[in-house]
Amino acid sequence: MDQTMRDDARTVIDRAIHAVLPDEAVRRALEGRTFPGRVVMVAAGKAAWQMASAASRCLAVDAGVVITKYGHVMGPLPRICCYEAGHPVPDENSFCGTQAALDAVSGLGPEDTVLFLLSGGGSALFEKPLLPAEKLRDVTGQLLACGADIVEINTVRKRLSAVKGGRFAQLCAPARVFSVVLSDILGDPLDMIASGPACPDPSTCAQALAVAEKYALRLDGETQALLARETPKTLDNAQSCVVGSVRALCAAAADACRALGYAPAVLTDRLCCQAREAGSFLASIARTHAADGKALAFIAGGETVVRLTGNGKGGRNQELALAAAEGIAGLDNALVFSVGSDGTDGPTDAAGGMVDGGTAAALAERGLSIHRVLADNDAYHALRAVDGLIFTGPTGTNVNDVAVALLRP
Amino acid sequence: MDQTMRDDARTVIDRAIHAVLPDEAVRRALEGRTFPGRVVMVAAGKAAWQMASAASRCLAVDAGVVITKYGHVMGPLPRICCYEAGHPVPDENSFCGTQAALDAVSGLGPEDTVLFLLSGGGSALFEKPLLPAEKLRDVTGQLLACGADIVEINTVRKRLSAVKGGRFAQLCAPARVFSVVLSDILGDPLDMIASGPACPDPSTCAQALAVAEKYALRLDGETQALLARETPKTLDNAQSCVVGSVRALCAAAADACRALGYAPAVLTDRLCCQAREAGSFLASIARTHAADGKALAFIAGGETVVRLTGNGKGGRNQELALAAAEGIAGLDNALVFSVGSDGTDGPTDAAGGMVDGGTAAALAERGLSIHRVLADNDAYHALRAVDGLIFTGPTGTNVNDVAVALLRP
Repeated sequence: MDQTMRDDARTVIDRAIHAVLPDEAVRRALEGRTFPGRVVMVAAGKAAWQMASAASRCLAVDAGVVITKYGHVMGPLPRICCYEAGHPVPDENSFCGTQAALDAVSGLGPEDTVLFLLSGGGSALFEKPLLPAEKLRDVTGQLLACGADIVEINTVRKRLSAVKGGRFAQLCAPARVFSVVLSDILGDPLDMIASGPACPDPSTCAQALAVAEKYALRLDGETQALLARETPKTLDNAQSCVVGSVRALCAAAADACRALGYAPAVLTDRLCCQAREAGSFLASIARTHAADGKALAFIAGGETVVRLTGNGKGGRNQELALAAAEGIAGLDNALVFSVGSDGTDGPTDAAGGMVDGGTAAALAERGLSIHRVLADNDAYHALRAVDGLIFTGPTGTNVNDVAVALLRP
Repeated sequence: MDQTMRDDARTVIDRAIHAVLPDEAVRRALEGRTFPGRVVMVAAGKAAWQMASAASRCLAVDAGVVITKYGHVMGPLPRICCYEAGHPVPDENSFCGTQAALDAVSGLGPEDTVLFLLSGGGSALFEKPLLPAEKLRDVTGQLLACGADIVEINTVRKRLSAVKGGRFAQLCAPARVFSVVLSDILGDPLDMIASGPACPDPSTCAQALAVAEKYALRLDGETQALLARETPKTLDNAQSCVVGSVRALCAAAADACRALGYAPAVLTDRLCCQAREAGSFLASIARTHAADGKALAFIAGGETVVRLTGNGKGGRNQELALAAAEGIAGLDNALVFSVGSDGTDGPTDAAGGMVDGGTAAALAERGLSIHRVLADNDAYHALRAVDGLIFTGPTGTNVNDVAVALLRP
């Protein structure tokens, strides 16, 4: 593999991920910002501890609560209680931590601020159900079984929670809520990230009841009454700021490419098709422009999906890269990589994959057919054989993936 | 659907296809060109008659032969014999027509020119086998059954033909051969289009014998001897000019977009992934740039493939468009279309499909789920229900497909 392009790719990967690390993202959001009155921090999600730690270094926090996944608290933080709890299924600790957060924000005045640090996983970790656990499980089970889509599911579930659908911000009033969000959902829909605890809810009771009717959900009187209780449609005290997202990841990748002399084009930050097909599409772009005689970078961020057709080892980024290897085969000036910002691609220790115009031939030499490897979902072993795996270790952030095609003159 | 954008799309489709019509393409290639000596025309392929007709209007042809598919000869041409023959399987008429062409080019001098007009389907229509039909069928059958790829198959088959793999140009010597090619293969590989009758053959006897050994083909002595007979590696008397191809289709689409005020970007002319995934990718690009506040056109040409998962009616262009409808749902300034340059997409009377940000909702209103329709491969009926089909009628050309995402400020 071309060492210069490989080094360039590595530089792009490092800089892109660095820009969306929780610490960096929170620092950017809070730098130079001051809050009058008391500041109470509530951090929920998989990156909650890092975000809280970074925020503590930026400003003086009077009190706070961190609720994150088991094993994710890295040490004590001054004046902050840290909770570890269940994810993706909430447990008693989720509820305890959330109650502690609600206690911390109660009794605040209009001059005070709740600094709400939200990251992926917040939906399970930050929760106070309005129904007994047993009933909630039943409704959730019915929703999953009936074929309702994610918007329909959330429309119902927000109404069964004391904190989702903007209700947390409502409980914080009259204090102001300043949310700093690390987004793990394409398009950064604030009402969907952790079910939008500090975001006005665009869904309505009428819609929730329509979902119940459409799928003939079996609901008791208590649950039906909850569905009829409206969520806030405006929140004068809440302000949100998305600081880390796949958009920021793509923008940072573009900056890094530009600094290395490649003219970057961010094609999309909403990629959501099949991994191997995305690799084929990206490679077809590279092949078309390989003879342009320019240093170019085509950037596509998002979260592809793996179509399971075999029992091998791999991840969506590795599949994307391996599929691209076929499309750029024989080009001596092209490289394609795809990497997950969390540093772990599928159930592997790699963060993604990297291929160039010689990869297909190198695989063929080892008797490996790209078609067969993809059919087996075994990109990991194939890429490992040709030094095509990217390793970063767990990064502590998760803002989806970025794939890049690099071309040299 | 937004009528202005729809009109724009229709204009782009018409202009793009017009640019790659056989007549137009041949006219561009021959305009202002003069040939000393005698000019013998040989036209083979599905567009052979149109190409020959256009060439006859551009220059004086002394003699010529047209070999095209049954039903494709539209009338007599001066000094030209027209043959209709079997496709995709060659028949006796293919062989008669080819022999007539060989007779016409024999005895020419170094000042004379063979004007060779080639289009898709030429591989079957222009053929003089060196083996008895029975034996050739047997070898072809073995090659198809053993899992050999198209390059391997062609490496063997070129050697069993008197005209493929550059041998036709060799037989024309000392006359010069000027080829005008309408390409139906992505990337315009001249040695692959109709198996390259007038193009030096990059494959070797050693490779042909290796294929025979690899797949343990059962070959008699006569066939083995043919595999050992080398094809021409250089052809001093041959010159080729690709005038119609998916690249020209994309370039014409880009010109048409520019004329309408859209800033065009040709992403690729080598698209070959799954239709529905290409639609998702293209839609994700549209969604990302929808808020740029600019009039943009993203263009992707090629030939996608349909993954058969149902028994409905549709084609790759219709699937691509329908899949894109989901990705651009709700945008009021986006339109995506995909169209086949031959005017017939799959086994339907439509040339492709067109969708905008309102299409998904219009389908939902009619109780049509995009996911389910795609799973049934039934894009035709769904698009028909929302006025999303493109009709052009058969165009007489075939240079693959083009998909375009249009965005308005």
